[in-house]
Amino acid sequence: MIGEYYEGSPEKEGGSMADRIDLNCDLGESFGIYRIGRDTDVMDWITSANIACGFHAGDPHVMHRTVQLALEKGVAIGAHPGLPDRQWFGRRWMELTPEEVFDLVVYQVGALSAFVRVCGGELQHVKPHGALFNVAAVNGEIARAVAEAVARVDDHLILFGLAGSELVRAGRQVGLRVAEEVFADRQYEPDGTLTPRTRPDAVIHDPDRAVARVIRMIREGKVTAADGSELDIRADTVCVHGDQPEAVAFVRQLRQAFEANRIQVKRVGEL
Amino acid sequence: MIGEYYEGSPEKEGGSMADRIDLNCDLGESFGIYRIGRDTDVMDWITSANIACGFHAGDPHVMHRTVQLALEKGVAIGAHPGLPDRQWFGRRWMELTPEEVFDLVVYQVGALSAFVRVCGGELQHVKPHGALFNVAAVNGEIARAVAEAVARVDDHLILFGLAGSELVRAGRQVGLRVAEEVFADRQYEPDGTLTPRTRPDAVIHDPDRAVARVIRMIREGKVTAADGSELDIRADTVCVHGDQPEAVAFVRQLRQAFEANRIQVKRVGEL
Amino acid sequence: MIGEYYEGSPEKEGGSMADRIDLNCDLGESFGIYRIGRDTDVMDWITSANIACGFHAGDPHVMHRTVQLALEKGVAIGAHPGLPDRQWFGRRWMELTPEEVFDLVVYQVGALSAFVRVCGGELQHVKPHGALFNVAAVNGEIARAVAEAVARVDDHLILFGLAGSELVRAGRQVGLRVAEEVFADRQYEPDGTLTPRTRPDAVIHDPDRAVARVIRMIREGKVTAADGSELDIRADTVCVHGDQPEAVAFVRQLRQAFEANRIQVKRVGEL
Amino acid sequence: MIGEYYEGSPEKEGGSMADRIDLNCDLGESFGIYRIGRDTDVMDWITSANIACGFHAGDPHVMHRTVQLALEKGVAIGAHPGLPDRQWFGRRWMELTPEEVFDLVVYQVGALSAFVRVCGGELQHVKPHGALFNVAAVNGEIARAVAEAVARVDDHLILFGLAGSELVRAGRQVGLRVAEEVFADRQYEPDGTLTPRTRPDAVIHDPDRAVARVIRMIREGKVTAADGSELDIRADTVCVHGDQPEAVAFVRQLRQAFEANRIQVKRVGEL
Repeated sequence: MIGEYYEGSPEKEGGSMADRIDLNCDLGESFGIYRIGRDTDVMDWITSANIACGFHAGDPHVMHRTVQLALEKGVAIGAHPGLPDRQWFGRRWMELTPEEVFDLVVYQVGALSAFVRVCGGELQHVKPHGALFNVAAVNGEIARAVAEAVARVDDHLILFGLAGSELVRAGRQVGLRVAEEVFADRQYEPDGTLTPRTRPDAVIHDPDRAVARVIRMIREGKVTAADGSELDIRADTVCVHGDQPEAVAFVRQLRQAFEANRIQVKRVGEL
Repeated sequence: MIGEYYEGSPEKEGGSMADRIDLNCDLGESFGIYRIGRDTDVMDWITSANIACGFHAGDPHVMHRTVQLALEKGVAIGAHPGLPDRQWFGRRWMELTPEEVFDLVVYQVGALSAFVRVCGGELQHVKPHGALFNVAAVNGEIARAVAEAVARVDDHLILFGLAGSELVRAGRQVGLRVAEEVFADRQYEPDGTLTPRTRPDAVIHDPDRAVARVIRMIREGKVTAADGSELDIRADTVCVHGDQPEAVAFVRQLRQAFEANRIQVKRVGEL
Repeated sequence: MIGEYYEGSPEKEGGSMADRIDLNCDLGESFGIYRIGRDTDVMDWITSANIACGFHAGDPHVMHRTVQLALEKGVAIGAHPGLPDRQWFGRRWMELTPEEVFDLVVYQVGALSAFVRVCGGELQHVKPHGALFNVAAVNGEIARAVAEAVARVDDHLILFGLAGSELVRAGRQVGLRVAEEVFADRQYEPDGTLTPRTRPDAVIHDPDRAVARVIRMIREGKVTAADGSELDIRADTVCVHGDQPEAVAFVRQLRQAFEANRIQVKRVGEL
Repeated sequence: MIGEYYEGSPEKEGGSMADRIDLNCDLGESFGIYRIGRDTDVMDWITSANIACGFHAGDPHVMHRTVQLALEKGVAIGAHPGLPDRQWFGRRWMELTPEEVFDLVVYQVGALSAFVRVCGGELQHVKPHGALFNVAAVNGEIARAVAEAVARVDDHLILFGLAGSELVRAGRQVGLRVAEEVFADRQYEPDGTLTPRTRPDAVIHDPDRAVARVIRMIREGKVTAADGSELDIRADTVCVHGDQPEAVAFVRQLRQAFEANRIQVKRVGEL
């Protein structure tokens, strides 16, 4: 039974426990003739789309098409700004200053916003990509630059950041609504950071175990870290993937488990 | 006497005659460590700045700084979208489809808009750059794509186009306010297009003659074409340059001549 | 019977008839995380690989890996220089001057050559890509620029060009060995140019018919043009594709037909 | 008197003392319409030119023109490969793997080599640029990747590296001739690394003092570090700048001081 994934206690015990969740996925990562991602498939199961803005991935045409698709599927739209490096997909940190980060984020959020306006939608959130996401999670100055860029472009936007991270903190400081993001398939360190992918235990390959962990994070606000210790975690949104058929299958499984566990899946803007 | 540049009749004879003009200049064309343009100097004399949007020139940092500078100097801000080609500065046509042009314009106008918002200003206009400007002047489909992109991002924006061009026509068709642009230092063909730069008479090197032509275009709505024929032309805004010291000197001379001729220099949004 | 594809006369009648052919394919078109092309599969069936040089497609890592793969598979290596435009894959002409084309070709041939040297191989040929290939086929000045660039980098290189084109002519004028290239799946105009892809009859979808046409081009030096007229054509090398499973299947079918018709498949450098 | 700059002892005391020196300068850093560097002026005074290869700076046209200029001026030519980042001029490290560095260097050295061949010259050396130079100075794996790339493209090339650095060591290990490079206008740390530019004493602004230091490095193989300690240093080549008028004036002053001190200025390949 899908409902059996979750074996924790259903009673609420604190502020971080919830019976609602948002599912977000990085989309619009194709470029020119290069196509990646099963955007159409995964859009059926998620509630928030993080759309690449033409720096690490995407291009104006892909952005337009992906925004349209999200609107057709009723998926909330977020800007997914990254580093200006297509070759390594924005995954390498480039020693940017906070001012440079501020400008990169403003630029990309503005570009995506224009497509959202053109298509008659509304921008819900911003989630930085790759190295920018990772550095903003631990570096307060970079986190602040991202948060301020978002707030100054539009203070109604919701900022997505790693649960418990500097980015989440910075977002609250500048007065933004913040969504704390958890990862279904990643191991956590006791300090709340993700176990680096270079470690053999970084990724949780068993879908059932991944589902159970997510449900516990949502329900109890807890996750077991790599060293076996218990970590408090707040889960407003879960990051899922849409690049492989198995990834899409996992998202479907996750949604069914949520249903069985009476966890409502709603876009974060409605939570 | 500066007032003597203009020898035409001061009486109004038609709709295109005016005693007001906007002066626009392409700015924010630096990139990374590369610096071009005397942006600070020329901003003292113009009323509308066309700011590069990071495709043919500019980058997020340069855009931010240039928008701030324009606001400090009281110069109206326009987006100056171009082709995605830094190497040839957006001056080579790339056989784009109207859909591709639409997306390129939406993207770039959106990106610049965000900096304007962040700096507390307002975007006044959009003027396409280089090959995009030239092709949109004569190709109705491309002109329509540019005009629609601008109108759908924000229908309060003013579209700048070559006086009498397809772009001007397309802008009016989609309901935009349009500014017809004339060139002080360029020869015109009898059909209203600019004499190609490959022709020896393409550029008017004598500043006094250039000034007199501009004043006549503004006052009488007329210009003498390359073949000696008289051309009707509407001048809402004059394009000036800011890349060389002489260019800045010419702009100053032009403003003094306008003053002597009681032509008010105002941003196009106020005309 | 595969041998039955070809129903023409086997006796030689002119200089362009042959019983040997080279098979070439564009490869190494992946970029960063983006993967395209079934390079490993198609390498089993071809004799010459045209490897993208990092402008329209490819990157240093992909170039290195593709050169190694070609050497392992015994496939001759060619540089496949294109326009500096990843977004549209080098398929849009950018109004380059002959000098600019010269420099683009020198740069890219040099870059690929270095990987060939590092891997212990030898560069066999150069084939321009996309818009550069198409323009060099009909524009004598651009053709000359490509040919001179190749000859001045290394005059032992073989230049690939559309059979009967300006590029073939220019290659011979500068003293290069030239391979005239035919297309199995494309219709020809009476003047020897390819029927534009915008025409409904541009592509020959029936593999058997395509095979029969190629064999006739090799054996008789003739092809039936779109208007039914007979065209003299010289086939030193046939361009095949490796991007789709059906494309690879077609290459296999072509090789089997060559075998049944006693046409030897050899790299062009050995012909 | 210029000869008085140098007050050290002229007797040789060790292997690193010399009466010959090479002067190298980074050149060919313009891009498209963007022009930087006084390449023509500075070429009159230097013996080795490090020419940008189109990644952090330069483009095929600029490379061609700069190679020609160097040959006309009798300046030895070197490739100056950098990171694929124009926006920050290759000055930000991008967390590359040794394999990625290897491929970037091979690509760029190959591209520049082709222009040298086309112009009838010979490539003398390779000097990595910016962040690649700095990281290769201290990271043995990256240093090894650079050295191997150079050696495998052409083992007659000379590798330029910071005097005493990992890159110099790696070059010798792979069997390359190596030129140890010193900086006239930079302070040194006791471990031989350059004092970071973030420190107020990083740059030596007094030209006379800079000249005297260089001459002592050449003659005695010694330099006084930031903490006052004496550092052994080998000076095969001195890095000078050509971007500002004062920089060119300094190079001239340096050459005159060398003459007065009977230090011959020769390209490193002749030393």
